[in-house]
Amino acid sequence: MSLEIWDLAGADDNVRFSPYCWRIHYALAHKGLTATSHPWRFTDKDTIAFSGQGTVPVLRDGSTVISDSSHIADYLDDIYPDRPLLMDSAQARALCSFIKQWTQITLSPIVMRTIMPELFAAIADKDKAYFRESREARLGRKLEEFAAPLDITRAEMKSALHPLRLTLGSGETPNQLYLSGATPGYADYIVMGHFMWARCVSQQDLLLEGDPVYAWRERMLDLYDGLGRKAPRYTGGAGS
Amino acid sequence: MSLEIWDLAGADDNVRFSPYCWRIHYALAHKGLTATSHPWRFTDKDTIAFSGQGTVPVLRDGSTVISDSSHIADYLDDIYPDRPLLMDSAQARALCSFIKQWTQITLSPIVMRTIMPELFAAIADKDKAYFRESREARLGRKLEEFAAPLDITRAEMKSALHPLRLTLGSGETPNQLYLSGATPGYADYIVMGHFMWARCVSQQDLLLEGDPVYAWRERMLDLYDGLGRKAPRYTGGAGS
Repeated sequence: MSLEIWDLAGADDNVRFSPYCWRIHYALAHKGLTATSHPWRFTDKDTIAFSGQGTVPVLRDGSTVISDSSHIADYLDDIYPDRPLLMDSAQARALCSFIKQWTQITLSPIVMRTIMPELFAAIADKDKAYFRESREARLGRKLEEFAAPLDITRAEMKSALHPLRLTLGSGETPNQLYLSGATPGYADYIVMGHFMWARCVSQQDLLLEGDPVYAWRERMLDLYDGLGRKAPRYTGGAGS
Repeated sequence: MSLEIWDLAGADDNVRFSPYCWRIHYALAHKGLTATSHPWRFTDKDTIAFSGQGTVPVLRDGSTVISDSSHIADYLDDIYPDRPLLMDSAQARALCSFIKQWTQITLSPIVMRTIMPELFAAIADKDKAYFRESREARLGRKLEEFAAPLDITRAEMKSALHPLRLTLGSGETPNQLYLSGATPGYADYIVMGHFMWARCVSQQDLLLEGDPVYAWRERMLDLYDGLGRKAPRYTGGAGS
């Protein structure tokens, strides 16, 4: 097998911050697969035109091309069923759809508001106009108006994460170290993608020590020989 | 086998409205099991003292006694594995813990605020003092102050249900008629319990036609020969 992944990079080739690509970095590690990684920018639409669409992650496995993180996760379990499953049943797949929507609706805006200044600074210069235009159209306001200070977003995040906090730390399910159970699975990678998004571009931390979600994130950072912990980070701040 | 369940009833023996008991009514139907049902009131602590705690549902299966809806669901899958599984894998069980916490934190207060006047009217007279005292201590305010009108709670519910709405109706997962996938499972029963709670005591409807969650609830009401749809309802209104 010969796997390739197209992965969003910042101005620095080594800074990879897409939450959706991070789901797949973790998914590949979970399955013991390695892929040649191609740094990609928002405006590099031509280089992934072969995928029939314009966003990453894109995975090429020999002659097969798959885009969309959910489709890629399903594909990896379907084609490599003898390697550890990301989702261990039909219900687990269906419930991961809910986790994905919950993450997107509940967590994603809070993370984005927190990291926006640093995120904008971290992306490649050639991407900045596209990023501003597309995101401002989606958000209905200027990036600067969407951004919010950490004291506000941290409180929002504390509230938003409460179902996850009780799942991991209520004592009702003491063996549940991960959202997926005693061991991590794709549901964990879905949520962790958003924490990696923040970590790879921002110095601000939405979580406080003592929170069961903080302890979970520490465990996640340690997985696969520190895959998340060792990832290069943008450290330039919000720039000018 | 000889199954018995202790089930919260209102002033009317036939009105059974506990969301946690409804999870188990659906779970038993899913597994093709029937149980002798005992109407129980909040103040009937003595009659379930054999369970070692004071809330329902309580299930007795021969000489085995299980309380807590989650434990009962696990038990039913563990002891009757050849009947349709409520949760089809270890990950599905773990993700149901999250669905349970999400339902409790996100949906439960909204339902409770909506139905409070009718709920209080529907419960047995002998339970009213206990219910008021215990709930007001938990809520930190009078029941009447906690209650809220439907126009407010319906808007809150619309927002709270958005992850479920997109899971069921985004078109991303067209075969996902249920939270659990193409067919219903325990995750659906967890959420449906709260809609049955509302349905069995209240004339107010938190959902509007056209909402994918409304269509899901219709499917849920039809399951198992209309188990939910046929359930007796309190129709006396908020009383005096």
